[in-house]
Amino acid sequence: MLRKISFCDLNCDLGESFGAYAMGNDESIMPYISSANIACGFHAGDPLVMAKTIQLALQHGVSIGAHPGFPDLAGFGRRNMQMSPAELHAAILYQAGALKSMTEAFGGTLQHVKPHGALYNTAAVNFEVAKTIAEAVKKLDGSLILVCPAHSEMEHAAKSIDLPVASEVFADRAYNDDGTLVSRNIPGAVIHDPAELNERVLRFIKEQVVVSISGKLIPIQADTICLHGDNSMALQFVKNLSLIFQKEGVVLKAMNKR
Amino acid sequence: MLRKISFCDLNCDLGESFGAYAMGNDESIMPYISSANIACGFHAGDPLVMAKTIQLALQHGVSIGAHPGFPDLAGFGRRNMQMSPAELHAAILYQAGALKSMTEAFGGTLQHVKPHGALYNTAAVNFEVAKTIAEAVKKLDGSLILVCPAHSEMEHAAKSIDLPVASEVFADRAYNDDGTLVSRNIPGAVIHDPAELNERVLRFIKEQVVVSISGKLIPIQADTICLHGDNSMALQFVKNLSLIFQKEGVVLKAMNKR
Amino acid sequence: MLRKISFCDLNCDLGESFGAYAMGNDESIMPYISSANIACGFHAGDPLVMAKTIQLALQHGVSIGAHPGFPDLAGFGRRNMQMSPAELHAAILYQAGALKSMTEAFGGTLQHVKPHGALYNTAAVNFEVAKTIAEAVKKLDGSLILVCPAHSEMEHAAKSIDLPVASEVFADRAYNDDGTLVSRNIPGAVIHDPAELNERVLRFIKEQVVVSISGKLIPIQADTICLHGDNSMALQFVKNLSLIFQKEGVVLKAMNKR
Amino acid sequence: MLRKISFCDLNCDLGESFGAYAMGNDESIMPYISSANIACGFHAGDPLVMAKTIQLALQHGVSIGAHPGFPDLAGFGRRNMQMSPAELHAAILYQAGALKSMTEAFGGTLQHVKPHGALYNTAAVNFEVAKTIAEAVKKLDGSLILVCPAHSEMEHAAKSIDLPVASEVFADRAYNDDGTLVSRNIPGAVIHDPAELNERVLRFIKEQVVVSISGKLIPIQADTICLHGDNSMALQFVKNLSLIFQKEGVVLKAMNKR
Repeated sequence: MLRKISFCDLNCDLGESFGAYAMGNDESIMPYISSANIACGFHAGDPLVMAKTIQLALQHGVSIGAHPGFPDLAGFGRRNMQMSPAELHAAILYQAGALKSMTEAFGGTLQHVKPHGALYNTAAVNFEVAKTIAEAVKKLDGSLILVCPAHSEMEHAAKSIDLPVASEVFADRAYNDDGTLVSRNIPGAVIHDPAELNERVLRFIKEQVVVSISGKLIPIQADTICLHGDNSMALQFVKNLSLIFQKEGVVLKAMNKR
Repeated sequence: MLRKISFCDLNCDLGESFGAYAMGNDESIMPYISSANIACGFHAGDPLVMAKTIQLALQHGVSIGAHPGFPDLAGFGRRNMQMSPAELHAAILYQAGALKSMTEAFGGTLQHVKPHGALYNTAAVNFEVAKTIAEAVKKLDGSLILVCPAHSEMEHAAKSIDLPVASEVFADRAYNDDGTLVSRNIPGAVIHDPAELNERVLRFIKEQVVVSISGKLIPIQADTICLHGDNSMALQFVKNLSLIFQKEGVVLKAMNKR
Repeated sequence: MLRKISFCDLNCDLGESFGAYAMGNDESIMPYISSANIACGFHAGDPLVMAKTIQLALQHGVSIGAHPGFPDLAGFGRRNMQMSPAELHAAILYQAGALKSMTEAFGGTLQHVKPHGALYNTAAVNFEVAKTIAEAVKKLDGSLILVCPAHSEMEHAAKSIDLPVASEVFADRAYNDDGTLVSRNIPGAVIHDPAELNERVLRFIKEQVVVSISGKLIPIQADTICLHGDNSMALQFVKNLSLIFQKEGVVLKAMNKR
Repeated sequence: MLRKISFCDLNCDLGESFGAYAMGNDESIMPYISSANIACGFHAGDPLVMAKTIQLALQHGVSIGAHPGFPDLAGFGRRNMQMSPAELHAAILYQAGALKSMTEAFGGTLQHVKPHGALYNTAAVNFEVAKTIAEAVKKLDGSLILVCPAHSEMEHAAKSIDLPVASEVFADRAYNDDGTLVSRNIPGAVIHDPAELNERVLRFIKEQVVVSISGKLIPIQADTICLHGDNSMALQFVKNLSLIFQKEGVVLKAMNKR
């Protein structure tokens, strides 16, 4: 039975600039989203960028999440790296912990943690890595929400230790028939056409399905929709989604505000 | 009028190892001190070293402080660096914030913040730098104690915004007649002789004075005694101080436990 | 006696991207310049960016220089840093040495070394720092040219050890009456108006003078004109200069090709 | 037919200190070896350490090799990292290129390149990675020797492009029956007993075989013997080997001096 969604969270990766290096379009995008995943200085971001992005999110009433990644600025956290469970556990505590303290210093509350890039992809399919992350998040604060792909090992790991989870659907990424993401190396993996994006999101809102790259309908249970801030179309995409949500009567609401 | 001290805090810089690089003697020294200044990953330390050092401190009932420094691992935070007030503010929030969250994750509470190396020395004499640090600490948590040299600009800055301070005396560093530290470039700046150290500490305990490098008596009001963990004599020094304290009836007590 | 210039070198800072972080407009600017100052991975650039920029320069017959800076990616090498002479000597050997070997690996020859940002500014006025840099460059290869401001301590230091120098005039920076650059903190320090830039360059070509910010004529002996690649007008500037050079019969020629 | 070796190269990883962090025992070990693998600043070492280690090697007539690794100081280059062929190619050019230029600046000549840690282990079994490294070394200088395990993919890759190779046998590591190294995770993988080490080296010198961990005799063709500088027994080991070589009439000779 199809059920139309009445409220929706929209999350976006922000705070990815570093020193003199600008990335993304944070000020323009922030007004249109409900949750911000803020980089923590390991794969992107720096303390000053973090402070500014936190304040920007608070100004717009956007809920704040930590976006920890591998310690690999040169690779933007998109290269896989071998880390021992103890190293990874500490790296999550450090990154998400820094963002948590900074958010609280500016009067906010940390809502969620969402791993970035290669760490996200590995944790999605590797239970041990996922469990290490989930345990670190829980140790930091058991009410934090772990954002992860629906039906992933990350979701299983979080549930196995009673850590709150929010599963997400990607608005701008193509899906395989089995519900996994099409690899970025394959043409069509990232969606750049606004009309296609709109249709995909509408379909998800109305029927909670996505159409796979081969045309198959895949049912997706998701608590939040993710848009990539570094997609060149990001700003137009969030503006379009805003109009769709308005027209369809979907209320933009952060995952911790339900 | 001379007043003998009845309790005393002993603080030491720890957690300065990095990856495969070992530094200091944390496990041996921890049982003898009451406050640990733990490096936060910018000039020394890494997330895993921080996690281990926090747990070691908690096991020994040692109070925990953040020891933030300049972002200069290659220079161990001992080289001066130009940072804008906004950059420095954010760097303190980030480093002390990470250690604060991690300490709380392991069931502890952050007691104090003490800047490291070149940042400490600059803040001691530069009110603007000191104020930037003090404001960041206060923003993080107004009950945190800023550890600084007695009568320094750092002390003035902290007091000007009602941030708790603890002034410190250095057990293993020689003093100039004006109460400032003898530069490390001058012979005799660092004390390596246990007998000399013992006598200096005894003098401070009994009379609250230190003898300057020229032989002058300098009155020092201090809430905590600092020993450098990277002094090759550090372990013997803390053992000796432990015996002196016992004999003189001085109780070792962290600065936040009075 | 005024002497019109018949050939001219145009140098520009390039190769300043880092990993996923793009900076500048290297491919568009390269065809219009004769010498490229390529960042060496300490304040900007990374090995892959260096390799690509070297190859791009070689394709366009542009002479290659190393552009070493302070080890401060977060500050883009624009923050002053304390380094011992031995540390600085080794840092120059390492950075310029890496670029030299890479340039030779791709079939080119390193022409010059030009320090970047805060290191350039400090070396311009501090003889000891300048001498340390000049000695490292000479040790690497005594035929390398050190690019520096006319009449600076860097020029003096290089000449004192018989290292070839090329003095430069800045096309897009305002000058004080004493021939030093107007600080970037003062309005008007950086020139963004194409007409003004053209007039300044014409004046320099025809009369070897620049007009100071107060209107005074300053004679400048310069072997090369510098344009900043990160100036938002950089591409238009180099295109205009190309037209001026053509019209005035000035031949664009790298400093080592005379 | 057994053939006793009459000369032998002994290579050791040195220059692994970083800033204030000391590692190894370079000054004591240098007199006893013929080839030094010097870290290049990515996984260990820094420009000043490199400059000092190069000069130390030259003083002792020790041949110099570059020891490039993954860009992972926190993991000492022992954690596997995903790098694209283009990134890896450039990283080798940069690291070995920096050491090459520095060695030449101090009057020496680079003899060889030997990858470090996880990069060495991956290249030993992965032809594509090995080929990328070999090509970068050849591009830098076709007469450089690539040091690699006997019969490894690295050896095959180097030979496929006519790059000189030197195969090595490890004095302080246990071997599996198939000639691969016993993993460091398995007890007995690293040899700490001087008598055992001496016997193994004698056996290799006299018969060119090593005894595997199960007792099997493995024939090994090797041009150089490797000792790990961070083995706590390293200094005693090299002293013992020196005596053995003397007694057996084996001349210590760098790989490029035959």
